Amino acid sequence: MDNMSQRGIRSAGQPIGRLMAQALQFPDLISLAAGFVDNGSLPCEESTACMQRLLADPGDLRAALQYGSTAGYPALRSAIIDWTYAKAPECKPPVEQVILTSGSNQLLHLLAEALLDPGDIVLAAAPTYFVFLGTLQAAGARTIGIHADEQGMCLDSLQAKLDELSSLGLAHRVKAIYVIPDFDNPGASTLSLERRHELLHIAMKWRSSHGPLMLIVDNAYQQLRYEGESLPTLRSLHPEADDFIAELGTFSKSFSPGIRVGWGVVPEYLVEPLLDIKSNIDFGSPHFAQHFMYRALIEGEVERHLPRIRTVYQKKLQAMLTALQAEMGDIPGVHWRKPSGGLYVWLTLPEHISASEGAQLWQIATQYGVLYVPGDYCYPAEGQAVEYNTIRLSFGVQSPEGIAVGIQKLAQAVREVI
Amino acid sequence: MDNMSQRGIRSAGQPIGRLMAQALQFPDLISLAAGFVDNGSLPCEESTACMQRLLADPGDLRAALQYGSTAGYPALRSAIIDWTYAKAPECKPPVEQVILTSGSNQLLHLLAEALLDPGDIVLAAAPTYFVFLGTLQAAGARTIGIHADEQGMCLDSLQAKLDELSSLGLAHRVKAIYVIPDFDNPGASTLSLERRHELLHIAMKWRSSHGPLMLIVDNAYQQLRYEGESLPTLRSLHPEADDFIAELGTFSKSFSPGIRVGWGVVPEYLVEPLLDIKSNIDFGSPHFAQHFMYRALIEGEVERHLPRIRTVYQKKLQAMLTALQAEMGDIPGVHWRKPSGGLYVWLTLPEHISASEGAQLWQIATQYGVLYVPGDYCYPAEGQAVEYNTIRLSFGVQSPEGIAVGIQKLAQAVREVI
Repeated sequence: MDNMSQRGIRSAGQPIGRLMAQALQFPDLISLAAGFVDNGSLPCEESTACMQRLLADPGDLRAALQYGSTAGYPALRSAIIDWTYAKAPECKPPVEQVILTSGSNQLLHLLAEALLDPGDIVLAAAPTYFVFLGTLQAAGARTIGIHADEQGMCLDSLQAKLDELSSLGLAHRVKAIYVIPDFDNPGASTLSLERRHELLHIAMKWRSSHGPLMLIVDNAYQQLRYEGESLPTLRSLHPEADDFIAELGTFSKSFSPGIRVGWGVVPEYLVEPLLDIKSNIDFGSPHFAQHFMYRALIEGEVERHLPRIRTVYQKKLQAMLTALQAEMGDIPGVHWRKPSGGLYVWLTLPEHISASEGAQLWQIATQYGVLYVPGDYCYPAEGQAVEYNTIRLSFGVQSPEGIAVGIQKLAQAVREVI
Repeated sequence: MDNMSQRGIRSAGQPIGRLMAQALQFPDLISLAAGFVDNGSLPCEESTACMQRLLADPGDLRAALQYGSTAGYPALRSAIIDWTYAKAPECKPPVEQVILTSGSNQLLHLLAEALLDPGDIVLAAAPTYFVFLGTLQAAGARTIGIHADEQGMCLDSLQAKLDELSSLGLAHRVKAIYVIPDFDNPGASTLSLERRHELLHIAMKWRSSHGPLMLIVDNAYQQLRYEGESLPTLRSLHPEADDFIAELGTFSKSFSPGIRVGWGVVPEYLVEPLLDIKSNIDFGSPHFAQHFMYRALIEGEVERHLPRIRTVYQKKLQAMLTALQAEMGDIPGVHWRKPSGGLYVWLTLPEHISASEGAQLWQIATQYGVLYVPGDYCYPAEGQAVEYNTIRLSFGVQSPEGIAVGIQKLAQAVREVI
């Protein structure tokens, strides 16, 4: 491997690769690790109906089988704007600012490529989405974790860290703040309305004194709310949002990850640079999938599907919270966040217990037949100290019964380690 | 744009972006520029048949709608090996060495990411595939063009350039040779069997004295042969090929670019690094498209479709060659290559005429209503001098009649400039 690039070397050993390998190694285990979506509620009927209509429309089918443009099918980009800004039509971006990607993850990658040189700094909640941490690491960026609680990133801590970086003469290196406002992966937190305003205020203030700073707002889970009222997106809360917010969305969670259509709404000045990079990678994500999702969206299949999966996931979330209370409610030092949406619960164990890959708990848990994501995968390399006694639990894949058994086994392992 | 990364800056101004903008600016023009495939012969019936069977298989449909793995659907990877190595079963790679991507172009990008640091060197025919030149430029690599003729890269020139680089103390910077052996884009050349052996010999010799060197073999057009016998792929010609050849293929030309499934067969030691990078970008290309292409391949739709498009393209190629002879055969200094496959003809004008974007010929041609790809887009930054009097002509999109009219207009423009 002596011919690998620096970027290749920095990309090595991604947790997601290890997680997948682990899942293959222990196929009979109950996985509370996998980020897959619920298999039973995948939109088979909805997709069949849509696809039949697409196949029956010769002009549309032919267009779908041909190359598209780098930014993606304009009709879908338009429809996404209409759909996501139905409640805030005054904030609709022009269609040119929407880029379609292979999952919203690809947009995260494009942003990292466009914005970050080695040594540049990205701030994110600790914990945060570990695949993006891998992307940032590959780009050679410094990632700095900010203390977060059940309401997401703590903005006093963010401000303090920004002040510190500024006083160290590193202000010019601070390129972006990454945030998952709704049902954070893995933090299971939702940024309160007050914090949304405060975050925008901090970002604007920084920009006026230090120059460019991008807010990368990952709305991947936004549609998966199981109770309470939706909160406005960050982009819809500020009149100058278009100058500094890149907002991401995806149909992978709300409809189907196998179709794999995501998107970004990006500042106008970023459109061309991102498309230049994307044109080198694939000059446009699969056109067929985009035509298909266009139908699914405008023919109402997505909206019909959403209540169905919300019900399914709400039951699973409830099963997980009930099992955690029953199995671990009495263990001192064990606590967890109770999200109102998304696919994850964030579990904290007593301080002296490590949940790391290979540690005693991990070994016993896999022996007992349950897999989880060690929380330490999800911590930025600097800033907020890694809490090794944390775990990301997914309730997306397992049945409510599987979740109950999985939590029971995990509790057994925790008690044994204690 | 003062917050762009070096990579972002190096990615700016890709010709493909300008070409697409140009096509939008002049929608009524006859485009001999676009690299799109023939619209009329897109596999509408074949796709409908396949899709109906996929929709009728509930287990398969459900699996297709879920996430897949980063490397892609194993059954398709296996089927691709069986299909592409039907004539050389002894050379079949293990399925683990096959990676599915969004078009083979994404594999080119992954290879560049994995192998190249700024200042590293890639050798390629002059001219060569301009999108890959953009990728290499973004990676900060040096691209060195090697003289090429109608039989592809001239290997004396390659050897001379390698010797020169070695004597300059740059041997450790030489990371890859990129080659499109069949119906080169844009050179319209096919590497002869003798040159295939010679290229392998040169690469092996270099490796034994200087260490790692990757042969990146782009077989995108291999299935589009309209006359003569297929030549063996480079990977099937050398027992140690698996140590140093990365071979690319795609269904974009042979079936549908809208489905957009490509693949690479890569050395074993490169699998994990490439998947690490891919897992950061998209952790796997769209699974649905892979299940669909699996059916298209094993149910014989690809094989049924191929003779049909070969006939269509052969007629178009013939129309282009006939028109060139009729319209420009008598202009001194004008000549062109006559490929036996692919989608392109490489045209050379008298030396003093520039075909560059914005030059007189380009302006008159667009006035007369015809678009082409200026050949200078396709030259590596160093090595073989750019020939500005060259043009890439695509015969994929236009009808035979459109091709005849387009060449007539182009000839008119050439005569006017002369």
